[in-house]
Amino acid sequence: MTITVFGYPTSPFSRMVYYVLKELGLSYEIAQPNNHEEIKTPEYLATKHPFGKIPYLDDDGFHIYETRAITRYLVNKYQGTKNSTVLIPSDVQKAALVEQFISVEISYYTQPLYKMLRPLTLKRLHGIEPDLKIVNEGREELEKTLDVYEKLLEGKDYLTGEFSLADLLHVPLTFYAFNAGEGDLWNKRPNVSRWWKNITERESWKTISTENKST
Amino acid sequence: MTITVFGYPTSPFSRMVYYVLKELGLSYEIAQPNNHEEIKTPEYLATKHPFGKIPYLDDDGFHIYETRAITRYLVNKYQGTKNSTVLIPSDVQKAALVEQFISVEISYYTQPLYKMLRPLTLKRLHGIEPDLKIVNEGREELEKTLDVYEKLLEGKDYLTGEFSLADLLHVPLTFYAFNAGEGDLWNKRPNVSRWWKNITERESWKTISTENKST
Ligand SMILES: N[C@@H](CCC(=O)N[C@@H](CS)C(=O)NCC(=O)O)C(=O)O
Ligand SMILES: N[C@@H](CCC(=O)N[C@@H](CS)C(=O)NCC(=O)O)C(=O)O
Repeated sequence: MTITVFGYPTSPFSRMVYYVLKELGLSYEIAQPNNHEEIKTPEYLATKHPFGKIPYLDDDGFHIYETRAITRYLVNKYQGTKNSTVLIPSDVQKAALVEQFISVEISYYTQPLYKMLRPLTLKRLHGIEPDLKIVNEGREELEKTLDVYEKLLEGKDYLTGEFSLADLLHVPLTFYAFNAGEGDLWNKRPNVSRWWKNITERESWKTISTENKST
Repeated sequence: MTITVFGYPTSPFSRMVYYVLKELGLSYEIAQPNNHEEIKTPEYLATKHPFGKIPYLDDDGFHIYETRAITRYLVNKYQGTKNSTVLIPSDVQKAALVEQFISVEISYYTQPLYKMLRPLTLKRLHGIEPDLKIVNEGREELEKTLDVYEKLLEGKDYLTGEFSLADLLHVPLTFYAFNAGEGDLWNKRPNVSRWWKNITERESWKTISTENKST
């Protein structure tokens, strides 16, 4: 059995997949494009990811793309086989609340966060001057979302009460934001800051966030 | 047992939920806000939807928000109990491909579609002049996505081959686009147009799309 994750090893989306794999106790191989053009070739679009993105996963010949779909697949197939970590509970209502917070992550958290970070990343990678209007708009939207999180996390260690896939999916892009000097947005909110500590102090994340630094 | 969907009855997001309920053979009640302010009150935000949106679902006291999470919950809880309709297959790989296309819907389809439609809706509801630059940007992004769909749907009746939750979730917002006079985007692509026919000719959708016209 070989599980291969194809993507840039330091990409937040790839790291969501690695984080799930490590939590479930699975080993995996990392493959990566030689350059950005490779993920836009007709061959890549026809056979790997029709929208020209990374990551995709190959599990012994089974091919799947889109990060959250990949992570749900891994949980459904492997949870409980190597260790007792639970990322999606079997109880239907508890699982529903995990899904609720995954949708919250996509709809209200990652969207503004990405908006704020993308211009900063383009600056770092390609020297393109960031459009600070967009960066600030993203930051303002994110502040509103984090105000809501501050309330949601009152008296709770994790979004649903217990660590789950929903918490995990927040980590890699937020880590990126801390590296970009934006950590104060999380640190200044006591509940959010406590939650951030809880979801990043796990061994599997510590390993991932210190691996592949140079790529 | 009472299932209540709270939302505007003609909202595309509410209709995604109704469509799933009808496909699963479940009956439900519709409740709606008296006005737009109601979904922004401190009480609504604290107890119904922290981001001030509709829809939410109440299933005999179990409360859940976010459309795709609601629909997955309904499938996980009720699929197979009232009829034999399958919206998410039990096979792990088949289910993964449904999730893959739900993520495609959110990432590449609904985002540009919403961008194109939102200004047109604001015009219709509030008389606000639409920013045609945004409308056109949304339309151009959507054209690219539909070109990819045209290839994905080659030789297939549905995205994964069989009707699933992924197809269903595309319907209500696309229906809205047809009503806004944008149907040509789908009609001019043979595979996309055939797929559109397949996913809208179901009895449950026909009922929903003709109900509550006046609200
Ligand atoms: N919806 C995709 C998004 C993945 C994504 O945005 N990947 C970035 C990683 S940095 C990418 O491939 N960017 C390359 C591009 O857009 O050209 C998912 O959930 O996997
Ligand atoms: N992420 C939400 C989006 C729902 C949504 O956008 N609902 C619209 C329905 S028209 C809404 O509540 N709009 C009111 C507002 O944003 O003020 C979901 O998936 O349920």
